[in-house]
Amino acid sequence: MLNVSFLNRCVGAAAISKNGWRTLYFADNGHRNETQPFRTTKNYSSDHSTSEEASKNHYTLIGVGAVGALLGMGLYWKLQQEVVSAATIEVGEQKKGLPTYTAEDVAKHKTKDTKIWVTYKCGVYDITDYVSQHPGGSKIMMAVGGSIEPYWDLYAVHKNTEILEILETFRIGNIVPPKKTDIKDKNDPYGNEPKRNPVLIPSSLKPYNAEPPSLLLTEQFLTPKDLFFVRNHLPVPVVDMKSYRLEIGIEGKNKLKLNIDELKKNFPKMYTASVVQCAGNRRSEMTKIKAVKGLNWNNAAISNASWAGATLNDVMNKAGIDLDKCSHKHIVFEGMDKGPEGSPYGASLPIELARQLKNDILIAYEMNGTELPRDHGYPVRVIIPGVVGARQVKWLNNIYLSNEESTCHWQRKDYKGFNASVDWHNVDFEKSEAIQQLPVISSICDPAEGTELESGAEEVTVKGYAWSGGGRAILRVDISADGGKTWMTADLQPTNQSLYKTWAWTLWEATVPLPANHGGKAELTCKAVDVSYNCQPDNVEGIWNLRGVLSNAWHRVNVKIPS
Amino acid sequence: MLNVSFLNRCVGAAAISKNGWRTLYFADNGHRNETQPFRTTKNYSSDHSTSEEASKNHYTLIGVGAVGALLGMGLYWKLQQEVVSAATIEVGEQKKGLPTYTAEDVAKHKTKDTKIWVTYKCGVYDITDYVSQHPGGSKIMMAVGGSIEPYWDLYAVHKNTEILEILETFRIGNIVPPKKTDIKDKNDPYGNEPKRNPVLIPSSLKPYNAEPPSLLLTEQFLTPKDLFFVRNHLPVPVVDMKSYRLEIGIEGKNKLKLNIDELKKNFPKMYTASVVQCAGNRRSEMTKIKAVKGLNWNNAAISNASWAGATLNDVMNKAGIDLDKCSHKHIVFEGMDKGPEGSPYGASLPIELARQLKNDILIAYEMNGTELPRDHGYPVRVIIPGVVGARQVKWLNNIYLSNEESTCHWQRKDYKGFNASVDWHNVDFEKSEAIQQLPVISSICDPAEGTELESGAEEVTVKGYAWSGGGRAILRVDISADGGKTWMTADLQPTNQSLYKTWAWTLWEATVPLPANHGGKAELTCKAVDVSYNCQPDNVEGIWNLRGVLSNAWHRVNVKIPS
Repeated sequence: MLNVSFLNRCVGAAAISKNGWRTLYFADNGHRNETQPFRTTKNYSSDHSTSEEASKNHYTLIGVGAVGALLGMGLYWKLQQEVVSAATIEVGEQKKGLPTYTAEDVAKHKTKDTKIWVTYKCGVYDITDYVSQHPGGSKIMMAVGGSIEPYWDLYAVHKNTEILEILETFRIGNIVPPKKTDIKDKNDPYGNEPKRNPVLIPSSLKPYNAEPPSLLLTEQFLTPKDLFFVRNHLPVPVVDMKSYRLEIGIEGKNKLKLNIDELKKNFPKMYTASVVQCAGNRRSEMTKIKAVKGLNWNNAAISNASWAGATLNDVMNKAGIDLDKCSHKHIVFEGMDKGPEGSPYGASLPIELARQLKNDILIAYEMNGTELPRDHGYPVRVIIPGVVGARQVKWLNNIYLSNEESTCHWQRKDYKGFNASVDWHNVDFEKSEAIQQLPVISSICDPAEGTELESGAEEVTVKGYAWSGGGRAILRVDISADGGKTWMTADLQPTNQSLYKTWAWTLWEATVPLPANHGGKAELTCKAVDVSYNCQPDNVEGIWNLRGVLSNAWHRVNVKIPS
Repeated sequence: MLNVSFLNRCVGAAAISKNGWRTLYFADNGHRNETQPFRTTKNYSSDHSTSEEASKNHYTLIGVGAVGALLGMGLYWKLQQEVVSAATIEVGEQKKGLPTYTAEDVAKHKTKDTKIWVTYKCGVYDITDYVSQHPGGSKIMMAVGGSIEPYWDLYAVHKNTEILEILETFRIGNIVPPKKTDIKDKNDPYGNEPKRNPVLIPSSLKPYNAEPPSLLLTEQFLTPKDLFFVRNHLPVPVVDMKSYRLEIGIEGKNKLKLNIDELKKNFPKMYTASVVQCAGNRRSEMTKIKAVKGLNWNNAAISNASWAGATLNDVMNKAGIDLDKCSHKHIVFEGMDKGPEGSPYGASLPIELARQLKNDILIAYEMNGTELPRDHGYPVRVIIPGVVGARQVKWLNNIYLSNEESTCHWQRKDYKGFNASVDWHNVDFEKSEAIQQLPVISSICDPAEGTELESGAEEVTVKGYAWSGGGRAILRVDISADGGKTWMTADLQPTNQSLYKTWAWTLWEATVPLPANHGGKAELTCKAVDVSYNCQPDNVEGIWNLRGVLSNAWHRVNVKIPS
């Protein structure tokens, strides 16, 4: 028996395109107040948007007649604007007389050919015939072959008596409950990891690394904390806040020590919306060419959040250091996450780059308005806008000037670029510079690879992100539905940042006509241009490298168009 | 009758590769003291190299036995280290009994198939059988179909009795002297243009635009003034230095006025080695895909010089302006070159970019150690490192803050990027940002397109330049001799500039094995990576645009390999 007791102030609205139902927007203010629909107005202040603004926009959408159309088209969906109080339904409970499946069985059913299954509590459901009618479009495909519960936690509008009843009509079986594995190994260095959102797609468990489903990534300008991709090199440290001190100074000398309150109270609190991206984002495209070493990231090892903290410059000045005058060559950041031999994760910036960015680098203690989650560096991380994630050290407790770059493995023996003819037998990591500022990138997040568009579709709405390192604003994103023969310019969501200090990503959207003779399929392609008119390389082959980093070729997504 | 009277301290040396004679280096200290051979030593101070250093390097080359080899191989060449006094030779004089050709006739003879002709004074020569023996390699091909005199002015070692006598053995005819066209039209706005080096290859005459032969471009880190590419939008102004004033201030207000002496004496003199590149460099590659509007530049609409002057910041401060605090949105530069309607050439930078570069932008009055030549902005131009040439206004006489960007045609209706599906019927220049900082580029300068390598060659030495806008250093240049299947990393000539303020270009060189089964031809390819790991796009097609700007695809050069 299931209690559906939490559906306050829930608003669902749907936008109509020429081809019928396309996209469902949610502004679930009770559950998640960061959700923002795509907008093209010029003066959109992305950092300070409110749920009130978001709602206003939804009502505009509703104004185009979505309500009437929804009912008229007879979809299994209901627009709710009133509180739904507790409802009690026998959905997902064990049912006698039905076959029993394991999670592995369910995972084999992800396509129309194999039938599309999901689970809810103890129930197994074949939703093959439903997916094309899902008002939220292809997003339902994120859940196939597994549980829909994490997605319904995200989109709580689904926890609705009618929807649950409809779900139960697709019931085909029961699932074997997974064995409980609560026995903790006290010696496991990964025994104190935080809880994570189950929609995250792990690329490794120990250390934990995971990205959100690509379809969710660009729904919001600011990525919610629990959807922000996670890149941990080592176990997440457990920090004792009583003894925590951030040390700032010069290598080998006495350092200024600040506790968290001193960090918060003694310096002006500065804000910036800034991207963190793994050097290996989109590595899976390189793997297809030739094996590489690294986590097999799809295109969502990148996220964008609002960060707050003290500037590096203010903190260094308090420690008596003038970055413009110091003679040291590097600034080193060290975390509290430690390898088996006890040495901490660390990274460094050339001093010249630190000088350029000294008022933009944040010693950050807030993410999207509240304290950092453990996976993102609680209590303090450094945010170095425009620079690869690997240098934005989490669980930060040491900042110092040095004449040497960080001796950490990931600074010296990793995260560097090589050409496609360098492989493990002939690589010399000393011959390349550590990756710092990243090149221009863009990616299609919606539709996902392999999506089946509506039958007879004549156009497709494409959404994604674009970003460039070094603060270089995105000037243009080009989209093609014919594999690069013709291009359209996407609408860009304003970042409200300046042309030369655009640290946040640019979300974009374009509705592109499908080629007349598409033969049932189309290749969607995107490429971006930054303010320095840098562009993306056409193909992965020319940028392939043994570590699979810097994978920023034109992004290509194949879709099917049933006749 | 020809007098050869100027051959002082002339040194010629040749380097030997596995495949025999490859390259001839010159250090003609009497005629040109900027010539520097390629070097790979780490601490090479490119800005302050001397002819003494260059000579030292040559003597090292000589030390490998070049002298003996030269003589031993019986080439028509003589190493001279002594003064050759006046010699009188009947070379190039009119000769009775020989056929007479026009310049147009000669211009048709540039390949082995059509025979290779050159002229010297009144003589026409068929040097088809000589070119493969030329100790200077394929550089001789720069002169084919025309006069060799401009090249012998560059490489004065050729003005040598023996060489002239050898030349005369190839005599086949006399050339019709060109008609004198000294009648000047007093109303011609182009009636006061400066003299130019005849080796420059014009892409237009009025206004004058020209690039040096690609083979000469990367012989020196600092491009000699008379080889520096010329990009004029309008006639070269004649400047009266008595009345010349540089005005600095705010639009519509009284301005600070400085004469040239005040500019030189009242501010610290700062130096920088910095590239100027036309937005349309390498446009000819785009033209091959589909017609574009613009000068048909090859790959040499780029040069690198040492500039000296006052910083923009110092000059603005003198005018009472603090760039960091002003509220204006643009800084405008205006020249003294004027269009038919009287409005000057102008350009502007967004104020944010001007702030970032305020101590790097030079109000320059010197180029390579002496005053600016007229073609390069005498008496004053602005040097904006890392930014497209079009904004580096020449003949500068007005700098002012404004809330509008420059209203000049070339700021608002030109020099902007669009995607390949935008053409003249649907372009809207307001929808794109004016090009400022340029993307990463590299190019092969030697060998030139179509070069015939030595018979049976197994490897090829490739030379060129690489550069990126925004001060981003070049980290790596990759070279392929199999059209991009395998890559080698080139040796880079150090710039002695920092990673994030590399305003100068990076010259590079690589000796690459030719593929085993080359079938008589090979495609050489280069691509570069900058400190932000931006890379070049693979193909021209994806970056084609109606103005043919930003042409930075992998550069490809085809060579022949006779068996």
